[in-house]
Amino acid sequence: MLIKKSPPETSYGMACRTLQIPLSEAGGSECVLEPCQLSVFHRHHESEIFVIVRGRGRLDVDGRHVGDVGPGDVIFLRPFAGHALRNLSDDERLEFVALYWGGQDVHAAPAPLPDRVLIFSTPPTPNGDLHLGHLSGPYLGADIYRRYLRQKNVDAIHVTGRDDNQTYVKRIARMESRAPEAVAEDYARSIRETWAKAGIPLDFFSSPKGSVIYREQLSSMISRLLDSGMIVEKTVEELYDRNTGFSLHEGYVKGGCPHCGCSSDGNACEQCGRPNDCIDLADPVPTLPGVELGRRRLCKLYFRMSAVAPQLAELVARSNMSARARALSVAMLADGLPDICISHRSDWGMPAGVPGFEDQVIYVWFEMAAGYLAADLQASSGRPFFADPGSSIVHFYGFDNAYYHTLLFPAIYMALGGDVNVPGDHVVNELLFLRGEKFSTSRRHLIWGRKLLAHIPSDYARWGLSRVRPELRNEDFDLDRFIEQTNTFFAGRLAGWLTSTLAHLAQQYGGMIPEPGAWSQQHMAFHQEVRYLAEGAERAYQVSGFSPQAATRRLEELVERAHEFFATHCRHETGAAAKDHHRTTVALNFWAMAVFARLAMPIVPETAQRILALLGLGDQAGIDGTGGFIQRDRQLDPAMAPSLPPISSDIAEAVSCVD
Amino acid sequence: MLIKKSPPETSYGMACRTLQIPLSEAGGSECVLEPCQLSVFHRHHESEIFVIVRGRGRLDVDGRHVGDVGPGDVIFLRPFAGHALRNLSDDERLEFVALYWGGQDVHAAPAPLPDRVLIFSTPPTPNGDLHLGHLSGPYLGADIYRRYLRQKNVDAIHVTGRDDNQTYVKRIARMESRAPEAVAEDYARSIRETWAKAGIPLDFFSSPKGSVIYREQLSSMISRLLDSGMIVEKTVEELYDRNTGFSLHEGYVKGGCPHCGCSSDGNACEQCGRPNDCIDLADPVPTLPGVELGRRRLCKLYFRMSAVAPQLAELVARSNMSARARALSVAMLADGLPDICISHRSDWGMPAGVPGFEDQVIYVWFEMAAGYLAADLQASSGRPFFADPGSSIVHFYGFDNAYYHTLLFPAIYMALGGDVNVPGDHVVNELLFLRGEKFSTSRRHLIWGRKLLAHIPSDYARWGLSRVRPELRNEDFDLDRFIEQTNTFFAGRLAGWLTSTLAHLAQQYGGMIPEPGAWSQQHMAFHQEVRYLAEGAERAYQVSGFSPQAATRRLEELVERAHEFFATHCRHETGAAAKDHHRTTVALNFWAMAVFARLAMPIVPETAQRILALLGLGDQAGIDGTGGFIQRDRQLDPAMAPSLPPISSDIAEAVSCVD
Repeated sequence: MLIKKSPPETSYGMACRTLQIPLSEAGGSECVLEPCQLSVFHRHHESEIFVIVRGRGRLDVDGRHVGDVGPGDVIFLRPFAGHALRNLSDDERLEFVALYWGGQDVHAAPAPLPDRVLIFSTPPTPNGDLHLGHLSGPYLGADIYRRYLRQKNVDAIHVTGRDDNQTYVKRIARMESRAPEAVAEDYARSIRETWAKAGIPLDFFSSPKGSVIYREQLSSMISRLLDSGMIVEKTVEELYDRNTGFSLHEGYVKGGCPHCGCSSDGNACEQCGRPNDCIDLADPVPTLPGVELGRRRLCKLYFRMSAVAPQLAELVARSNMSARARALSVAMLADGLPDICISHRSDWGMPAGVPGFEDQVIYVWFEMAAGYLAADLQASSGRPFFADPGSSIVHFYGFDNAYYHTLLFPAIYMALGGDVNVPGDHVVNELLFLRGEKFSTSRRHLIWGRKLLAHIPSDYARWGLSRVRPELRNEDFDLDRFIEQTNTFFAGRLAGWLTSTLAHLAQQYGGMIPEPGAWSQQHMAFHQEVRYLAEGAERAYQVSGFSPQAATRRLEELVERAHEFFATHCRHETGAAAKDHHRTTVALNFWAMAVFARLAMPIVPETAQRILALLGLGDQAGIDGTGGFIQRDRQLDPAMAPSLPPISSDIAEAVSCVD
Repeated sequence: MLIKKSPPETSYGMACRTLQIPLSEAGGSECVLEPCQLSVFHRHHESEIFVIVRGRGRLDVDGRHVGDVGPGDVIFLRPFAGHALRNLSDDERLEFVALYWGGQDVHAAPAPLPDRVLIFSTPPTPNGDLHLGHLSGPYLGADIYRRYLRQKNVDAIHVTGRDDNQTYVKRIARMESRAPEAVAEDYARSIRETWAKAGIPLDFFSSPKGSVIYREQLSSMISRLLDSGMIVEKTVEELYDRNTGFSLHEGYVKGGCPHCGCSSDGNACEQCGRPNDCIDLADPVPTLPGVELGRRRLCKLYFRMSAVAPQLAELVARSNMSARARALSVAMLADGLPDICISHRSDWGMPAGVPGFEDQVIYVWFEMAAGYLAADLQASSGRPFFADPGSSIVHFYGFDNAYYHTLLFPAIYMALGGDVNVPGDHVVNELLFLRGEKFSTSRRHLIWGRKLLAHIPSDYARWGLSRVRPELRNEDFDLDRFIEQTNTFFAGRLAGWLTSTLAHLAQQYGGMIPEPGAWSQQHMAFHQEVRYLAEGAERAYQVSGFSPQAATRRLEELVERAHEFFATHCRHETGAAAKDHHRTTVALNFWAMAVFARLAMPIVPETAQRILALLGLGDQAGIDGTGGFIQRDRQLDPAMAPSLPPISSDIAEAVSCVD
């Protein structure tokens, strides 16, 4: 029989006519690419075959060119192979028939870990210390991911820095009547101290101040993009301060976002995440006193982000990011990308260094693209990640920074040309609220990281912040609930499990871990359950679906199940006749404790390391499946167990008090 | 080097000397079995080799004879192969060296399902209707397991019956001034109605009344055991009623348990689970009015349970049961098994039918062994499970019935001889409490199953009782908490998920399920997460580690994750550019709904069946992995969604009221 075709519909950017195949297990369509057209990069769960009928095309699979094709050529794509086809002709259509099948019981296995990973968390603006909202998002996330990768023997480094040239630094300096340099210096130091207290070590801390490499990267970037025509001069209308002559941009101006209508700062809206040009803000108002708003025409530098839109569309399609970040990027691409103004007349920032623009500084988010490249050069021991396509570069940031990372920076790297390893993994967090409202310095509605960390062990803070990490959606932090849950888990369940099982071991086995003996079906079921929970916890550390929240959930369940199992079996397995079963119970219990410690290590490194040391596994922290049993006759010293004291609710007042 | 050996210690019932092998990954021991001795059956996680050095032995693996061995023979045992070795000589020792290794990353995979399963739940005593404690334990458990197995195309039947000949029936009849036959008839009917309302269908309902096969099984059992000397006559001292001349046993007498000292009925103690002989109760007191306690010597029939102790020990070692049931069985075996008195002078029960014992009836728990055999003959369509070693027989019961099922009945089946398929799987429940106290008819502290089921859908009751099913330990039922949790899950989360996603489908896709399109990493992570939770839920239905509690936990999480995923992605995947990703979101959502329905089916069959019918999968309920995607263009009718109304808290009074 001849297969009929449905009327054309657009799929993956092509005109496609569904083949009316009378089989439920296979499908197909006839697809047409117009001259020069590129199909939208995608992956799906079926196996697929393309048969080229007419025209000439170029096939890319998972971002790599695999060949040019013509009539009669047949292409096979395995499930989840990301692919895009480009019509190479500028006057002829490319036609092909796609047939796909399978996917009835697909298993989308996680990709193997790369050998080398550069983890960036967005450099914070040194205009204040970090509150819990900052900590819970990019910084703790990046640190947990780094610790996980290092346990797996991946060469992973965590790099961030200080974003001195933000307008917000100058704004706070004006409000505090200090020099902006002094403000930046002070807060940068505070921020670094807070990271240290939170157990977040950095492999490199980037600073624009006094770094030759940083300045060189920026000026070389600007001159190359000017040369290639990717940076152009445009005379445009702009907002400025009649008193100083400086441009009003970013933190210096507020108005209605031209996209969503919400109150927005200059250049980008925190609400919808879209960029603006300041002049397009509705009812703009300066944010500093003594400013007299004016409008003028000025010649400024623009980066032509729009010129690389097709490559960006392909990159976004194959990149790993949250649904919301993807939606923003895809919508901006669909609406047509704006070009981005990258220079402003100001005395705060990196000088543009371009003849005719001596009184202008470079837009700080454009500067950051160079900052990331410079940091890579300085941190990567001579093997830059941006030049190593076998390595992975992962960005951790909050949603309000999404478009910079998914579109602007990649566009700059692409525009520079060459074989750049453009970052493709984005771990994007939403907001942490404090008792139902946004953290706010001005309304004094916040908890400083350093305040909390002064009163409790950093592991408690790390676990509690992981538990409410804003991943798919905004989450809420409540100090009373945090204290209660922390005490229930650490001082209650975890300490109870450690203490009672160590006491039992001391009493029944002289403190020496026995070899596992006879296994009942209940031992096997428990063994499976622990492996199951461990698998779930480990999956939560993968870069796609990264979720410390899920890891804490699985691990809290592991502690509860293990303690319940041990208590039940110990109560009943008494006497000589039960001995061979009971030593299996005890061996399984301490194996489960090692499994817990290894998998909890990225979140609570100190506690986990103490548990491993207690078990004599201090040098075996690597997460490798669920590991083997602990060597028989290992003598455990209960004094080596971590101390897990409850938090007093008295700390609430001290912690909540602002400044 | 010559390996040194440690001083002998007892392991698996043998004298073993550990080999001091200087390797952590392998171990070994030299073992000695005395003449005629059998090692204790066991399984462990290592691979093992035995080298026979001296003597002659017989090896059984997983309950099957695999060969006789002598000096120089080498035996290999894979991980978790259950094994026991018997010294066949009656004057020579059997010596062998065991070497074991591996087990560094063992995975104790669940055993494949058998082809045929006979599920017994203990026949209830018709002296009252069923309260929630009864329902939550054996009956709901057995029904969930049966429904699971049938979904997997296993030929599974659930058999129970009425235990008319319990002394408790006569006792309640005396208290209600009715004939015991009438009492039994009434309550047996009530119980069957309650099961029907709870959605617990039976494949066979066994009754001692008027069943020829039942009587024949019992009399043939008694005569065969008399012939083989396994039933013997003993003249013993007993308690009796001076007014009627009847023996005081079971429910007719109370006193201090000779084992644990708790208040115990005759013949068995509910607290510690051990049998007694009535005469050994401390300070015995009759439980019925008008009884004058006396002691006399009487010739009674005894079953020699002690004679098959070695076989029972081997059976217990390889059987699947809770740690507590195993502990009781192992301790009773270690203490030396008692012989069990199986006849009492009474007018209520099955006549002993043995010359000289015309005025005695058979102990009702001995009778039950015959009842199970008779039920098998009647229910198994000509292929009795007790005669089919390839089939599996599973008992569901509460801990107070443990020793009957783990020792007494197997001993009777073994004593009958032949190739009996002795049941080896026990799903033993603990107690359900009501607001912290035991259910009690006399104190009117209980909730009747029929009362609750009169006011809410049976699925709500089944889910709520599964949630608190007393598995490893006693659990608590609280009606207010039950109402709140039921409403949160069914009327809140599950209905919210169904309604909102169906509304979205109607609005965006005209109600037709789209084919999955492009997959982001987030789609893949969600797909993995659903598969993960489905795997956890399915494992909770396996007979070892059977836990409807765990199944409800995983499935509630599945609903929460799926709704969160759908809501997040729908909020962001808008517009034409996101279309190919969004149809993957929608297809994944309805796939997850089918996964939920299939895996929830054993617990909430009506709700699950309605969801599958809604999805057009009404005939595809079988749990097979996580199934494929729902056929594209399937039109869904929101009117077919199950109605999941909240329970009014008004029902609390009506349900709690005891009449």
